[in-house]
Amino acid sequence: MKIAIVIFDKFTDVDLWLMWDLLNRVRVENWSVKILGERDSHISATGISVATQGRIEEANDADAVLFVSGQGTRERITDENWLAKFNLNSEKQFIGSICSGSLILAKLGLLEGKTATTYPTSKAALESFGVEIIEKPFVANGNIATAGGCLAQQYLIGWVIEKLADKSWSDLILKSIQPVGEGLFFDDLEEIKKLYVPVVKAQTV
Amino acid sequence: MKIAIVIFDKFTDVDLWLMWDLLNRVRVENWSVKILGERDSHISATGISVATQGRIEEANDADAVLFVSGQGTRERITDENWLAKFNLNSEKQFIGSICSGSLILAKLGLLEGKTATTYPTSKAALESFGVEIIEKPFVANGNIATAGGCLAQQYLIGWVIEKLADKSWSDLILKSIQPVGEGLFFDDLEEIKKLYVPVVKAQTV
Repeated sequence: MKIAIVIFDKFTDVDLWLMWDLLNRVRVENWSVKILGERDSHISATGISVATQGRIEEANDADAVLFVSGQGTRERITDENWLAKFNLNSEKQFIGSICSGSLILAKLGLLEGKTATTYPTSKAALESFGVEIIEKPFVANGNIATAGGCLAQQYLIGWVIEKLADKSWSDLILKSIQPVGEGLFFDDLEEIKKLYVPVVKAQTV
Repeated sequence: MKIAIVIFDKFTDVDLWLMWDLLNRVRVENWSVKILGERDSHISATGISVATQGRIEEANDADAVLFVSGQGTRERITDENWLAKFNLNSEKQFIGSICSGSLILAKLGLLEGKTATTYPTSKAALESFGVEIIEKPFVANGNIATAGGCLAQQYLIGWVIEKLADKSWSDLILKSIQPVGEGLFFDDLEEIKKLYVPVVKAQTV
């Protein structure tokens, strides 16, 4: 399974790293997660330089494609060269976004006639695409899903892991990041240890 | 205000980036957040190279010092050279940890006679220091606090922001990452915009 996370300049840091960390907890063979961009590195909203692991064209061959958020989305949706690199297929791929990443999905025509959610600061922009917005953390329609509010990445990534691995992995991984005493307990130790088992990685990583 | 986040090789990615992102949302003058390490860069648990912004000795002059977690903590607590670089003062500094970062606090003698929390996989090791462990997401005793489970960073960082800025910043920043419809709402738009106002940054950053 190949999962692509698409980043760009001025992305919201935690919107990359929470999904990255969760997706990398899956311990199944040939599970590959890659950070894609249009350059060798991109600069986050807080000024952190992040090396990419491939170009965004690779997203077209991934099993799941996830778009991060941030102020940078406003420039992405006006960059026709950047947009033209994508040739996504919602019949074959799972496609999702967190917060203002939904603007990119809308611009790519993936939310036409669909409901979606987003971050409060990008609601008006998403509405301008004619998308019906729902005040929920996660909205999935077929293979396309949007999430709003950083921590709603849990719903989005849970959905991806359930689709590409299974629900037991999704449940375990989401449990593994909960606060102790509020979803994760000391008695979960043996179960949590499954997340530390080495696995065979995809050769293409 | 100077806040130091101490990292090392094999740290848990989201345990750095969630606190980093939250702390960088504070918009008060001369608010500085730095990622410190013993080298120019450190490699995360998933293989990501992260550039440090200063050496760990700088933690000794910070107003708050936060330790991340990860498998790497087991090596840190046996590295006397590394440990000797710290000269923290819990009378003057706020000191905290997420998950197995508590092992470093214990090794530095900061949890003597105190209660604490940690991640399930590091509970036994923390107990071996004679620390009384409580199954809660967040335990604060005076200026020292421990949190357990990645998302319990919300309690830890909320505590730091409340101590070094004020409760209104803490409340707003924690709200800003909640899932839409579950703590963050579209009507919060105007309030959320406060997090995008430019501020004067500390000259030392």
